[in-house]
Amino acid sequence: MADLPRVLSHIDENLEQSVERLVTLLKIPSVSTDPAFAGECVRAAEWLKGELEALGFDASVRPTGGHPMVVAHYVPDDVPETAPHVLFYGHYDVQPPDPLEEWKSPPFEPQRVKGASGREQIVARGAEDDKGQLMTFLEAARAWIGAEGRLPVAVTVLLEGEEETGSPSLAPFLEANAAELTHDIALVCDTNMWDPETPAITTRLRGLVHEEVIVTGPSIDLHSGLYGGAARNPIRVLTRILGELHDDRGRVAVPGFYDDVAPLPDAIKAQWDALDFSEKDFLGDVGLSVPAGEEGRSVLEQLWSRPTCDINGIIGGYTGEGTKTVIPSRASAKISFRLVSGQDPQTVRDGFRAFVRERLPADCEVEFVAHGGSPAIEIPTDNTYLSAAAGALKDEFSKPAVMMGCGGSIPIVGAFRSRLGMDSILIGFGLPDDGIHSPNEKYDMASFHRGMRSWARVLGALAG
Amino acid sequence: MADLPRVLSHIDENLEQSVERLVTLLKIPSVSTDPAFAGECVRAAEWLKGELEALGFDASVRPTGGHPMVVAHYVPDDVPETAPHVLFYGHYDVQPPDPLEEWKSPPFEPQRVKGASGREQIVARGAEDDKGQLMTFLEAARAWIGAEGRLPVAVTVLLEGEEETGSPSLAPFLEANAAELTHDIALVCDTNMWDPETPAITTRLRGLVHEEVIVTGPSIDLHSGLYGGAARNPIRVLTRILGELHDDRGRVAVPGFYDDVAPLPDAIKAQWDALDFSEKDFLGDVGLSVPAGEEGRSVLEQLWSRPTCDINGIIGGYTGEGTKTVIPSRASAKISFRLVSGQDPQTVRDGFRAFVRERLPADCEVEFVAHGGSPAIEIPTDNTYLSAAAGALKDEFSKPAVMMGCGGSIPIVGAFRSRLGMDSILIGFGLPDDGIHSPNEKYDMASFHRGMRSWARVLGALAG
Repeated sequence: MADLPRVLSHIDENLEQSVERLVTLLKIPSVSTDPAFAGECVRAAEWLKGELEALGFDASVRPTGGHPMVVAHYVPDDVPETAPHVLFYGHYDVQPPDPLEEWKSPPFEPQRVKGASGREQIVARGAEDDKGQLMTFLEAARAWIGAEGRLPVAVTVLLEGEEETGSPSLAPFLEANAAELTHDIALVCDTNMWDPETPAITTRLRGLVHEEVIVTGPSIDLHSGLYGGAARNPIRVLTRILGELHDDRGRVAVPGFYDDVAPLPDAIKAQWDALDFSEKDFLGDVGLSVPAGEEGRSVLEQLWSRPTCDINGIIGGYTGEGTKTVIPSRASAKISFRLVSGQDPQTVRDGFRAFVRERLPADCEVEFVAHGGSPAIEIPTDNTYLSAAAGALKDEFSKPAVMMGCGGSIPIVGAFRSRLGMDSILIGFGLPDDGIHSPNEKYDMASFHRGMRSWARVLGALAG
Repeated sequence: MADLPRVLSHIDENLEQSVERLVTLLKIPSVSTDPAFAGECVRAAEWLKGELEALGFDASVRPTGGHPMVVAHYVPDDVPETAPHVLFYGHYDVQPPDPLEEWKSPPFEPQRVKGASGREQIVARGAEDDKGQLMTFLEAARAWIGAEGRLPVAVTVLLEGEEETGSPSLAPFLEANAAELTHDIALVCDTNMWDPETPAITTRLRGLVHEEVIVTGPSIDLHSGLYGGAARNPIRVLTRILGELHDDRGRVAVPGFYDDVAPLPDAIKAQWDALDFSEKDFLGDVGLSVPAGEEGRSVLEQLWSRPTCDINGIIGGYTGEGTKTVIPSRASAKISFRLVSGQDPQTVRDGFRAFVRERLPADCEVEFVAHGGSPAIEIPTDNTYLSAAAGALKDEFSKPAVMMGCGGSIPIVGAFRSRLGMDSILIGFGLPDDGIHSPNEKYDMASFHRGMRSWARVLGALAG
């Protein structure tokens, strides 16, 4: 039986060396979007490969059409048959540091400072996203190996270098290497804690349907004086139809839209209601005061457990300075639906198209462009691995992990699900004030330290 | 008593010389929008001044900030006191001839050809718009002076050189010279006949209210995943409000919008219903088939006698290729109302703003930008001068002139009304197939000939 306290002590005693390794990685400006830094991305990948090899992983840097992947395997001999083989995912690329003049210290010269909160922090581009986060896992593995001589479960590590540019090489790489990368569960470290004292696991990610709708009326743009009153105006048609997409209570009016939406379990709702979450602050930060979604539901319910429809863009006719007396030939809008577990993207898309077609008046044509879609992802709360991970986090923080939702989607999780048929457990130690993608990005030293300890516990718990 | 038949004979006998003078004017490329042709605009103005002086007018070329005006006066000694002093308006500038390669003959080398209809035509840029049309009046004046020794009424001629570029100098010129230019009635020759056999007087011009509406929601653009369902979306707000601007019967839903709209007199409606007008062709030419305006009204009623509301432009959020998961901070639209006689632009504007404000949900702000407005213009059918002109046209064509409406506005008529307090009678001899602003613009020889005869009759009729 492995001795977890010894692993945790190893982490505590070697914290400074762990920080030094993180600092080394942070000094590599692996900005993925700028071709000038392509060599730095390779350097970061090679450095990570070296670290993994030093730990005993069978590691390689694997070329793609873009920046390379790091893939590494560690399969201990004597793990129980019931223990899962896990796939850990992180990304070594970072956002550009611009605007440089707003950094208090150079973005690739990491500094340890005391933050406004009094908490010690490490400041650098990538300190949190995602170098700090991925290093919590690698250092936890190091502690297991250092203290116990081996990892408690089989681990495959996949580190990507294109996450900040939309992961163009990821899906083909997963498909080309499916056998090598498909394991029992994915562990993803790229999300937040609830607050500095409260761990979180993100178990609900909304899905997405993107749809473009183009309404055409007259065959050419018309003079609104000479035709106005007799000619069909596509902007009028489009605004009228889109204006009917929601009812007076904020619900999406497409028939059947909510048919496959399961009610939120009382236990989850109770947990969310008990969270220290200020709707006033959340909305107030962006100049709003009233939840604009479905009536009678909290903001967290609206964001994490309910599907939505939003108009992301609309254009038609004359949009320059001043005026133009035009009835345009066409108008178009970009619509997106956020889906929750149970909703089928194609059914939602079909429902929307029928909704529009039923309302289309004479002399109009409508064209739809499907811009992609993905179902929502929800890890059942009774998932064995999830339960084990939640228990480990509770042990570390002495309070239960919040089972969070996320209103957006995290593409890697969808890709693991759709390409490899694999669920993901999202555990991260970021905080809302980390300033990822912004100047002076930071990672709390406590996040780094307790992140390592958390992963050490999670690995132990997964071993059973 | 003047001998009208002698004046008409003078026109018929001297038709070739009249055509030659029109050809001379058409050879001057007085394109107002292109600074390279500024000298040609001056040349056209000077040529017209010379023609008017030769007829005995007190004529001058008057500088403006742009191209010059030609102003000329002819006040005969012995006209009856009851006879009006008329102001004739035309414009000597023309549209650019592009695309040149589509002209069958060079645009400024006028050709006399037989058109597809078998009717003789003169082809050149400006053949109709407006050189051919303005010359019908000048040649009618020449015939009166040639046959009778004088004009039957006092005439002031105002010829503009910036009509095709929006008449920037006109309003200040009218105000600076109001005393010189304000007379009993304006005669404007820049419109169409109903068909080659049927004269027309345009007596109704719709007014216009331009309004821009900008809805702001969140203080910054938001991620539609992280905020969607809880945050107010200004595009949703705007489309919903604009979608309610019309009721199910195509009527504008702004309260009170129709309060000041007088019903169309039965006699006018009967005249319009009797016109050889094909709704099918009118709409079919632009890819439409069904009148989209107020239910139960003919297309001509919708265009000439009913007010409208159209959305001329709308924009918000992401409108580029593909998709963006954004809830934008703002969305805006450009709205225009076409007004009919009796409607006050400010009342309409106020009504629209109240309509929007009443529907604005929490956390939204709305800003309105007034882009100008003008009331509709309607010459009462019992106007003395109108009756006289209509009688003259009936004499020439042996059928009554159609009292047409025009869905658009004609700025000069509004300017005469608002700046000089003067009504206008719009008589023109253009035909829908003249191709003004297009390659191979033409004017039917019959339009030119009967136009001269018509003006000769109108001048005689106005003398009483």
